[in-house]
Amino acid sequence: MKPPKGFRDLLPADYYAREFLKKKISETYEQFGYMPIDTPVVENVEVLLGKGGGENEKLMFKILKRGAKLQSAIDDGNFDDLADMGLRYDLTVPLARYYAANRNELPAIFKRYHIAPVWRADRPQHGRFREFVQCDVDVIGSESMAAEADVICATATCLSRIGFSGLRLHLNNRPLVSAIAARSGVPENLVPDALRSLDKIDRFGIDGAAKEMLEAGIPEAACDSLKSFFADTDPLDNQGRLDAIQKFLGDSCSAMVASLREIISLCPPMENIEIIFDPFLVRGMDYYTGPIFEVRVADAGFSIAGGGRYDGLVGTFSGANVPATGFSIGFERILVLMKERGMFPEGFAGIDAAVLPKNNSAMKDAMKAALKLRQSGLRVDVSLGGSALGKMLQQAEASGARYAVIVTADATSVELKNLKTRESQSVDVEKAATIISGV
Amino acid sequence: MKPPKGFRDLLPADYYAREFLKKKISETYEQFGYMPIDTPVVENVEVLLGKGGGENEKLMFKILKRGAKLQSAIDDGNFDDLADMGLRYDLTVPLARYYAANRNELPAIFKRYHIAPVWRADRPQHGRFREFVQCDVDVIGSESMAAEADVICATATCLSRIGFSGLRLHLNNRPLVSAIAARSGVPENLVPDALRSLDKIDRFGIDGAAKEMLEAGIPEAACDSLKSFFADTDPLDNQGRLDAIQKFLGDSCSAMVASLREIISLCPPMENIEIIFDPFLVRGMDYYTGPIFEVRVADAGFSIAGGGRYDGLVGTFSGANVPATGFSIGFERILVLMKERGMFPEGFAGIDAAVLPKNNSAMKDAMKAALKLRQSGLRVDVSLGGSALGKMLQQAEASGARYAVIVTADATSVELKNLKTRESQSVDVEKAATIISGV
Repeated sequence: MKPPKGFRDLLPADYYAREFLKKKISETYEQFGYMPIDTPVVENVEVLLGKGGGENEKLMFKILKRGAKLQSAIDDGNFDDLADMGLRYDLTVPLARYYAANRNELPAIFKRYHIAPVWRADRPQHGRFREFVQCDVDVIGSESMAAEADVICATATCLSRIGFSGLRLHLNNRPLVSAIAARSGVPENLVPDALRSLDKIDRFGIDGAAKEMLEAGIPEAACDSLKSFFADTDPLDNQGRLDAIQKFLGDSCSAMVASLREIISLCPPMENIEIIFDPFLVRGMDYYTGPIFEVRVADAGFSIAGGGRYDGLVGTFSGANVPATGFSIGFERILVLMKERGMFPEGFAGIDAAVLPKNNSAMKDAMKAALKLRQSGLRVDVSLGGSALGKMLQQAEASGARYAVIVTADATSVELKNLKTRESQSVDVEKAATIISGV
Repeated sequence: MKPPKGFRDLLPADYYAREFLKKKISETYEQFGYMPIDTPVVENVEVLLGKGGGENEKLMFKILKRGAKLQSAIDDGNFDDLADMGLRYDLTVPLARYYAANRNELPAIFKRYHIAPVWRADRPQHGRFREFVQCDVDVIGSESMAAEADVICATATCLSRIGFSGLRLHLNNRPLVSAIAARSGVPENLVPDALRSLDKIDRFGIDGAAKEMLEAGIPEAACDSLKSFFADTDPLDNQGRLDAIQKFLGDSCSAMVASLREIISLCPPMENIEIIFDPFLVRGMDYYTGPIFEVRVADAGFSIAGGGRYDGLVGTFSGANVPATGFSIGFERILVLMKERGMFPEGFAGIDAAVLPKNNSAMKDAMKAALKLRQSGLRVDVSLGGSALGKMLQQAEASGARYAVIVTADATSVELKNLKTRESQSVDVEKAATIISGV
């Protein structure tokens, strides 16, 4: 009896890992003044469809209408209108709807994070699920580049506390890359193709990107211009590259270049991350309107977080033009990396000790001893099975407990057994608590 | 742009309250050796319908089929077959399905808790929502009454740590109350009616219950017998009442009475809760097969947790008869009570300090100071607005911060302002961190 196709059960070990990661992130964001929110898992169909239309509709799990409304849709043959709600497929559309609904109760500059599942009716594939967690942090209502610096600094701190170092934050301004393409001689109608190719420099190099652009019909001169710009500047020299861009594009782009300089200047130095101005960073989403950024793990080559400014989108439902910038941490991808790299600390989950009644008549005293141990803060299981002592000891070891506490009826002391060293000693329960706590 | 009807947005204050409660419960259950799990929010329709049929179907939000499968259902006129999945309406059906799917990877006695939302397509009413959180703790695979004692002790400890005292745990054995009714002379076909009436003793007294039973056609002699049994025993004398029941029902009920004595004996004394044998406790659910229990708040008169043994149900999908007992905490009801009674500790949410740049040129130093304060463990917001200092101070107060830290560009010290006393002092950032931490 498996879960539905593309969905998964979380075993306790999976759940602990997720909670560990979630806690690290939420504690850090809260330390930075970001507030947690949640929205219903469903939204009305019109909200979810928004302007996106077709593409979003294909992603949606829709909720069937009920009762008379369902019957009337069927009777009228309105088979495109059988659903009234749908499961959210991201956290951004719900944020826009939430902001419009609750604006009066939120601060003028609203810093929120949201870690929650979303659902997509994709074809299930290996390692790709229809229910997965997104983790978004956003500043709503500020046009200042300090908002960018704030989400960057907060997210870098999250990633550091999770255990990632040697990170690179690629930074660009979304309109800038279009301007570079245009200035290089890419015809206006082919700029989107050029961006698509430039976005792949990381994987295929500038030559691979140039080849693809040529095939898309972009003039060779334009490709050469882009190649030489790439070759002539040092990827790690932010100020040099910004100066070169400024020179290449002229005054019309001064504000964009200045905004990047400001972000770089406002971010306090951080040990685990280096900010790199990357004029060829594109990022997929159409809705970005200003600075964009992406965190890459140096030795893995792929990104674990990304975001940018998307003024306008949050205002979709509130009717005002609301500035916004945000970061999204790749929660599921990071979980996979943490497992592969053994980034979870020892003993972050599970129990400290198992209390075992020597026989059935010791059950009452076992319950009492277990409660006492828990009252001193320990995580303690008590064997309920009525099995033989040897079997209970095996189960205690399998459960990951460090100690077994063997209880005899009406005795004043217990047998405390260290399950690693296999040493035993006879102590009272208070002393056992002290030893297990390691204090 | 409100959420769909019957659904609600969580503002940060709501979210903090929920997380506070969730954390108290999950930490306590983990201390007792219960492991967290999660299941998908959707299950296949056949799983959710189970044997329950009609009643469950009405509660379900169903997920519309997609693509060719939807089209073929429409083409064939199979309008009862438009959905392939549904949102879970409780956590018990998913547990049974989960146990069947993952049994080989779970311990022989599986102690799990699950705090998660469920969805019901009820008509929305005041204070009743279509999306709400359930909180279940269960022991799967043990027939021992120690399992009952374990869930009772764990749940009582949860409720104590949340802040509830003066609790009463009403304890009964489900088949016992049917046996009492039958022995009192209630005709077999009217036993369900009798149970329904007896379940209301709490609200209407034994006389109210007797009146209702008479109206249902239960003979007066039977009602009198039940009344006199009720009147002749002291509700607070567990052993006396158990002795009376034993005498009244004879040997056929010895095992049931003994199991209740065993539970009472196995539960260590707990300060905040008193166990009361209540031979008239029924509880609604049909699926209980043994001991049942309910926690009532003495001064509120209603229950905040309930549960019992339901051998058989978990085996629905695994084909085996799997013993199980569990408790469900009324998460939503407790949240309401905690708000009404002011049971949240001060400062459990929000920020400690707000860092304010004296003017725009101090923004960079403000970001740096904020990061330093956060590195010493504080929750610190930094004002991104570029507003005047007076306005930023107002916003800092409104945010609940205890301190404001005013930063001037290139200065070696900051102005630390206590927002309660309004006193200010000039200190360096390290000293500010010490003062705000209160160490």
